[in-house]
Amino acid sequence: MRTAGNGVVAKRGGLSAVAGVRAAGVACGLKKNGRPDLALVVADEPATVAATFTQNLVQAAPVLISKRHLRGRRFSALVLNSGNANACTGRQGLRDAEEMAREVARLLGRPMGEVFVASTGVIGRRLEMGAVRAGIGEAVRRLSATGGGKAAQAILTTDTGRKEAAVAFPIGRRSVTVAGRAKGAGMIAPRMATMLAVIATDAAVSARTLQRALGRAVAQSFNCITVDGDTSTNDMVLCFATGAAGAPAIRSGTPVLGVLQAALDAVCLALAKMIARDGEGATKLAEVRIQGGRSAREARLAAEAVATSPLVKTTLFGQDINWGRIMAALGRSGAHFDPTRVDLFVDEVPVVRRGESLGEEAEAAANRRLRRREFTLIAGLHAGRASARMWTTDLSEEYVRINAGYRS
Amino acid sequence: MRTAGNGVVAKRGGLSAVAGVRAAGVACGLKKNGRPDLALVVADEPATVAATFTQNLVQAAPVLISKRHLRGRRFSALVLNSGNANACTGRQGLRDAEEMAREVARLLGRPMGEVFVASTGVIGRRLEMGAVRAGIGEAVRRLSATGGGKAAQAILTTDTGRKEAAVAFPIGRRSVTVAGRAKGAGMIAPRMATMLAVIATDAAVSARTLQRALGRAVAQSFNCITVDGDTSTNDMVLCFATGAAGAPAIRSGTPVLGVLQAALDAVCLALAKMIARDGEGATKLAEVRIQGGRSAREARLAAEAVATSPLVKTTLFGQDINWGRIMAALGRSGAHFDPTRVDLFVDEVPVVRRGESLGEEAEAAANRRLRRREFTLIAGLHAGRASARMWTTDLSEEYVRINAGYRS
Repeated sequence: MRTAGNGVVAKRGGLSAVAGVRAAGVACGLKKNGRPDLALVVADEPATVAATFTQNLVQAAPVLISKRHLRGRRFSALVLNSGNANACTGRQGLRDAEEMAREVARLLGRPMGEVFVASTGVIGRRLEMGAVRAGIGEAVRRLSATGGGKAAQAILTTDTGRKEAAVAFPIGRRSVTVAGRAKGAGMIAPRMATMLAVIATDAAVSARTLQRALGRAVAQSFNCITVDGDTSTNDMVLCFATGAAGAPAIRSGTPVLGVLQAALDAVCLALAKMIARDGEGATKLAEVRIQGGRSAREARLAAEAVATSPLVKTTLFGQDINWGRIMAALGRSGAHFDPTRVDLFVDEVPVVRRGESLGEEAEAAANRRLRRREFTLIAGLHAGRASARMWTTDLSEEYVRINAGYRS
Repeated sequence: MRTAGNGVVAKRGGLSAVAGVRAAGVACGLKKNGRPDLALVVADEPATVAATFTQNLVQAAPVLISKRHLRGRRFSALVLNSGNANACTGRQGLRDAEEMAREVARLLGRPMGEVFVASTGVIGRRLEMGAVRAGIGEAVRRLSATGGGKAAQAILTTDTGRKEAAVAFPIGRRSVTVAGRAKGAGMIAPRMATMLAVIATDAAVSARTLQRALGRAVAQSFNCITVDGDTSTNDMVLCFATGAAGAPAIRSGTPVLGVLQAALDAVCLALAKMIARDGEGATKLAEVRIQGGRSAREARLAAEAVATSPLVKTTLFGQDINWGRIMAALGRSGAHFDPTRVDLFVDEVPVVRRGESLGEEAEAAANRRLRRREFTLIAGLHAGRASARMWTTDLSEEYVRINAGYRS
């Protein structure tokens, strides 16, 4: 994880690195393979909270409940389950999500409105509430300051590994930590709060300021990744601030808020890239960088068209720079540019100059880059000064295998 | 092919069924495997012509030349090659496309402005003009009224078979034919003239009237199919009318124009469905039908989101109705509706009522439909009266195999 100066440094561990946070992960039987499927994250003292949610019109019951609870701006706990999305489950689904919050609140002795709920898994099936209730009871008993790792495991679905990131920075003599965890490998698309992520900090900061900072960080990270262009009904990024580091409160308009923003940005971007890197069936992580766009909107459109094109993505899997597909994607993106002025690079290797091939040797050099696990596709449009970045994966036969068989 | 009454009946054969048309297909060496790669279609007497072109900003040289020649509204010949798209080839590409038109015009003794050019294949490589010139010479020598089949073969790339359709209808005592052929299996996406198609009729009709009728037919057919959401730089649908059936000219505002429209609609839809059915790696052809949309635009957005979703497409390949992915796609489409009022069907089998599952038996019944080669996914949004239809394919491992290795 690269951090941008400002005294922000990478740190080991996930949520467990943040003062004032306990967590637990258990297996309650929602996943038939016996893997962990229920996680609980608790703030020792009520914390301030910010969150962003899916922009899908179809929203899961836990999203609706958590949105309602966000209005109170206070956080005591988040309960998450995998194996079942509790989406398209009607009134019963809402009642089930409410009951999850109520049960956690009861056992912790906190107000129900401070408990947030998140679910991930198959859409359209009712939660087995007997299993969930038992799992919540066990999770509360197992809460510990070092339980973050197990909790991170319990929210995975098709993910192949835990996704955690943490940074620290000083405020006066105190060290403040921002740490997070995420899940997500499929139904990943830009322009929304994509997937589930929990971020915690022991900084003291108001809910309003935290919400604004989180919105900025999400726009440059989770909303810039794509695996398949599909948007989940359950996406949620939640960030809470315990203040337990003992540092002075961070106020809007102060330089230290800029440092907190840089820390949040670094954690969100690290988690977002972990999600893209672990995209279903992915063997490559490509940064798509558009330069010289006519406007920020057009640069973003161009980046999205390239990042989501199945033909570009299969080219990356094939490790052969069929750059005509990048040109075709740019051309249908809605961005305005002169095709005879476009330059294309893979990392620093030029492939196309002024819309035409630089020849077989240039393509062979680019192909050597495509054989790496990570690289950057750069398009210079020469239509203005705007730029945009997105992260995408290749499209492999394994993606199809995973998604043709997901429910069975 | 279903036709809608009006006296329009299906007919055997492709372009060869149209009076006043000769064609030829030859192998000139652009395709390294020795398969046919150059086709010529000629109207015995100059015909009226209409065409639609790709809306991609990046347009191949033959598209630019054909657009210019369309201004003259007269058609003598169309020369097509496969194996090389002549796109992103700069000024030399334009000179090469012009030379193809000039060479055909010279050999036929017709004006160069009446010769249209179309190319399909790899983007960014220069045409081998020696091979093309030799191929044009051979094609002119082999022109015949029954050469349509060979010509159809010569424009294929990843297509697995010829795509031809024809209908006939009476005008007075004369029988008039509308016939067409198409190619296309990848880089297929809606909202543009997708792929290459040539349609001919021996009706007599002005270029203006023909252009309007073609535009309508394309909007309901070629622009309603998707294989991978990518738009080619070389798409072109060209329709010419020889008048050689000897029937009276069809004028704007007359009932017989309605019959010609129905005939054009039927041929375009039949060809479009052949393209979708032959989509790269496709094992299924699904009609996506949206009912009860708030507006035609929103119904179309909803149909597109479902038809292009990789998760819906892998579900079809897996033959397991993971309908939550259809709900998620509808929800991110931009269409407005109440998720708790949505109904979903596979053919006439109901799966979801009022946004919730109808249970495992209903899903099992739907899965039996998904095992067929063709079926319809119907979403009732209950938000208005607008409807939309699109045709899509499943997404299989074979699509990835084809496109990861296309150039090598």
